[in-house]
Amino acid sequence: MLGEAIRGTNTGVSAELVEDAAKRLDGLAVPTPLVESPQLNEALGMRLLFKAECLQRTGSFKFRGAYTKLSRLPVHARSSGVVAYSSGNHAQGVAAAARLLELPATIFMPGDAPAIKINNTRALGADVVFFDRNGDDRKALAQERAAETGAAIIPPFDDVDVISGQATVGLEIVRQTRRMNLDIDHVICPVGGGGLLSGISVAIKAHSPQSHLWCAEPEHYDDMVLSLNAGKRVSIAPGSPTICDSIATPQPGLITFEIIRTNVSGGFVVSDREVMSAMAVLFERLKLVAEPGGCAGFAALLQQLERFKDKTVVVVVSGGNVDRSTYSRILDAAEPLHIGFPD
Amino acid sequence: MLGEAIRGTNTGVSAELVEDAAKRLDGLAVPTPLVESPQLNEALGMRLLFKAECLQRTGSFKFRGAYTKLSRLPVHARSSGVVAYSSGNHAQGVAAAARLLELPATIFMPGDAPAIKINNTRALGADVVFFDRNGDDRKALAQERAAETGAAIIPPFDDVDVISGQATVGLEIVRQTRRMNLDIDHVICPVGGGGLLSGISVAIKAHSPQSHLWCAEPEHYDDMVLSLNAGKRVSIAPGSPTICDSIATPQPGLITFEIIRTNVSGGFVVSDREVMSAMAVLFERLKLVAEPGGCAGFAALLQQLERFKDKTVVVVVSGGNVDRSTYSRILDAAEPLHIGFPD
Repeated sequence: MLGEAIRGTNTGVSAELVEDAAKRLDGLAVPTPLVESPQLNEALGMRLLFKAECLQRTGSFKFRGAYTKLSRLPVHARSSGVVAYSSGNHAQGVAAAARLLELPATIFMPGDAPAIKINNTRALGADVVFFDRNGDDRKALAQERAAETGAAIIPPFDDVDVISGQATVGLEIVRQTRRMNLDIDHVICPVGGGGLLSGISVAIKAHSPQSHLWCAEPEHYDDMVLSLNAGKRVSIAPGSPTICDSIATPQPGLITFEIIRTNVSGGFVVSDREVMSAMAVLFERLKLVAEPGGCAGFAALLQQLERFKDKTVVVVVSGGNVDRSTYSRILDAAEPLHIGFPD
Repeated sequence: MLGEAIRGTNTGVSAELVEDAAKRLDGLAVPTPLVESPQLNEALGMRLLFKAECLQRTGSFKFRGAYTKLSRLPVHARSSGVVAYSSGNHAQGVAAAARLLELPATIFMPGDAPAIKINNTRALGADVVFFDRNGDDRKALAQERAAETGAAIIPPFDDVDVISGQATVGLEIVRQTRRMNLDIDHVICPVGGGGLLSGISVAIKAHSPQSHLWCAEPEHYDDMVLSLNAGKRVSIAPGSPTICDSIATPQPGLITFEIIRTNVSGGFVVSDREVMSAMAVLFERLKLVAEPGGCAGFAALLQQLERFKDKTVVVVVSGGNVDRSTYSRILDAAEPLHIGFPD
């Protein structure tokens, strides 16, 4: 059970809602493992655990929030189906949840989304409609469709139900580290709109208030770091190139930012090159496939090694949906990191 | 506890020895997760669980047997260190175990072993000596060195202690599937000399005698399948090309074959192309990095889909040590498998 001290609950993301999400997801979401490499721990001088949400159903954490939201829709709201907009991971999460609940789903996706995300969303039975990432207003497109068809909009992050679903990642981290008799010093998580980070922070702060949470963002999309520094939501101009397609958002959510600014200690900005190197280390040392955005947290850790020395750190790997050709190009181009082993 | 009905114990791989190995490895070996993809299950029409030994310390199961063996060496046998010969995974396993136990280790490795295996063995502090995979007698080289220095030889597979260590993979599979309330119909495992398969079979047959075990071998190195068919150990001529470096052995072990012919139902031979496709599916659907030999079991399953329809199948992914450049080449060249999803 989540304790009384839970923070962020003024937004409506209550202890009860998170526990309810965990019950709804039981047997449907994969309780993803917390994996580690003893050699990497030794080389980096810390206890480093990866929460492998790349092993989640649909290859990212997004299924948790999407299924939680869809399963809470009142019966009368279900018959007209659901509509969502997404760069690809929320798309698959909504499509998989809709398939399980036998609802029709329409998903607006950018035409330049990774093929693996588009193909998988379609394979899950959703109707995919493309938009222009830098031109069209995705939210307006979804609202228009919802108005026409009566479908329920499933927001990608700024929604209490969605956040409560993503919070189950945090609950699992707490339970898994307790079974290992570990106190968590730090959690580092990639951030786009903030659904995952805000959810995790609620669960972590409830059970382990002394733990510090940090976010990792791609260069040119550091709206969360800027917002944390400014104490209010800041927008950045979209359109800059990044390999982190899944977290290239222009602005934090309203609800997510309210939670994050209460619970999160700060953030780090990582470059494409740093992300590529982190993906290669995860390939070589952990044998895990991370997508670029999914690896931003690990890239931040590698950038900030001194800060986390001798600590117990959980790095969230939020997704692994990357095209084969992109991945092989990244493995070929990534600069080697000289992570030595002590003699 | 292993039951009375344990098979293969006439070879000395007793229930007690396996339980003892599990105790020695507790806190040192990674209890690797059993991972699955609900979508892949649905597409293939079976319950498919991957025992992800690629997530093991040193990137393959070999640490289990090596540490078990080294930790059982009598004190007087330790001071002169250990010597081993290996295509690369046993090398890392022995090096990591020797490092933990503070023993010097010399490892004979083929000069054409993957760089990741050579570099990692060295990084773990072992002295690496190269041999010619197709010319030198690796075993004779190790024996010569042992005679000179008094070092203990750590055999790669045909050894009761080593097998008892690998058997802990089977114990974990039994415990993990029990927690999931699943009965195991089939286990498919890559096979080289047979240390992993024989060990797993002892544990599985003790706890789940109705389960069937199968081995998977690379083309040109089907000595285990030939031996099972002949009812006695058969050798093949080495030297043929294969991408499955870790399981390209010319002959089953004496002890391992005795166990395997009692416990294992049969085997399948897979081509390089089938292995490459299986690696690509594991990349795309499970986000796991498997090395070619480590993926032979999954390639066999994909070759034999009809046989395993509607069953609960555990596929052992025995290792993930593959060079970046090799992996990206394989991802680029692998033929896509059309694994559809039912409508």
